[in-house]
Amino acid sequence: MLTISLETPRRVGFVDITGRVEDACERLGVVTGALVVYVPHTTAGVTINENADPSVRADLESALQRLVPEDSPFTHLEGNADAHVKASLVGSSVTIPVSDGRLCLGTWQGVYFAEFDGPRRRRVHVVGLSAVAA
Amino acid sequence: MLTISLETPRRVGFVDITGRVEDACERLGVVTGALVVYVPHTTAGVTINENADPSVRADLESALQRLVPEDSPFTHLEGNADAHVKASLVGSSVTIPVSDGRLCLGTWQGVYFAEFDGPRRRRVHVVGLSAVAA
Amino acid sequence: MLTISLETPRRVGFVDITGRVEDACERLGVVTGALVVYVPHTTAGVTINENADPSVRADLESALQRLVPEDSPFTHLEGNADAHVKASLVGSSVTIPVSDGRLCLGTWQGVYFAEFDGPRRRRVHVVGLSAVAA
Repeated sequence: MLTISLETPRRVGFVDITGRVEDACERLGVVTGALVVYVPHTTAGVTINENADPSVRADLESALQRLVPEDSPFTHLEGNADAHVKASLVGSSVTIPVSDGRLCLGTWQGVYFAEFDGPRRRRVHVVGLSAVAA
Repeated sequence: MLTISLETPRRVGFVDITGRVEDACERLGVVTGALVVYVPHTTAGVTINENADPSVRADLESALQRLVPEDSPFTHLEGNADAHVKASLVGSSVTIPVSDGRLCLGTWQGVYFAEFDGPRRRRVHVVGLSAVAA
Repeated sequence: MLTISLETPRRVGFVDITGRVEDACERLGVVTGALVVYVPHTTAGVTINENADPSVRADLESALQRLVPEDSPFTHLEGNADAHVKASLVGSSVTIPVSDGRLCLGTWQGVYFAEFDGPRRRRVHVVGLSAVAA
């Protein structure tokens, strides 16, 4: 397992970690199998989405804000209840196939750390899993 | 890793791929472990849900349309921003346990390709992962 | 693979299964790799979220009820269509890294069975997956 550290710049935002995940895949020596990218935080998540037009990330942020507004009637008193809900909607991990030592991301796919209660210093765990031997 | 190809018939809809995933499980020779079903697209996803009453899939479609309407105030100009958001909500992969060479789906569970910007030709990657030896 | 049984007490609610998942991790003998926690039901899911303040779970419940109200215009006639939609939003599995025989949950993370159509007797499958040998 490898752990990636990052600093998120704003309260809410998607940070591109594709390059660091590809690097972890190589360092872990995964040839055939899958890579798990895991976020050990409860007010952040990880998702796979478009890597070309950055407006897609802005639209993801605004759509999630409309779905779970910060000022919804919450009982948790730390002011980040919306962040916990968004984390469960987006999810705490992604699993990506690996073949011939390379991540099988689609042409337009990137891996994004989803910050919902930043700015903060965050971590991401990356684990390489073995494919069944043919 | 095996790759399944499919054609989705409409802009939005859930396509049952359970049989093809079960077939991939057998061809990959997974006996004990898990199967990862991965969608390498950014306007589609994959989910597990009811395989009996097709109205459940219609309800999933209509609920997602209410949550993320196509005419929300998006900035991405390709007219499919809602599809990107739905893809991140539903997720790009499912992981299903395998025991004695069979997928451990529940009685009422099926695997559905979730199309949000079709009709299109799509692909799904399937990887078999090894369980820890007892 | 191990299977955990539980009884959920109410129609909707998050049941803490962290201790039972940690116990399964130990019994499966996972040292380095990942654990998959899988729900074989279509009106329930599993998620990772805050383990300290129980109000976070109450907020998750109320936020999901606002996103997918029971009385939305559904066609599925069993009265639990909202539960199917919530199950697909939350997801049917989580994958957690394991290192040195321990789950790599973050300090504030717990594993929660997400019931959306209880009270019922439910099951959860737990599978240990092998890391790539270094």
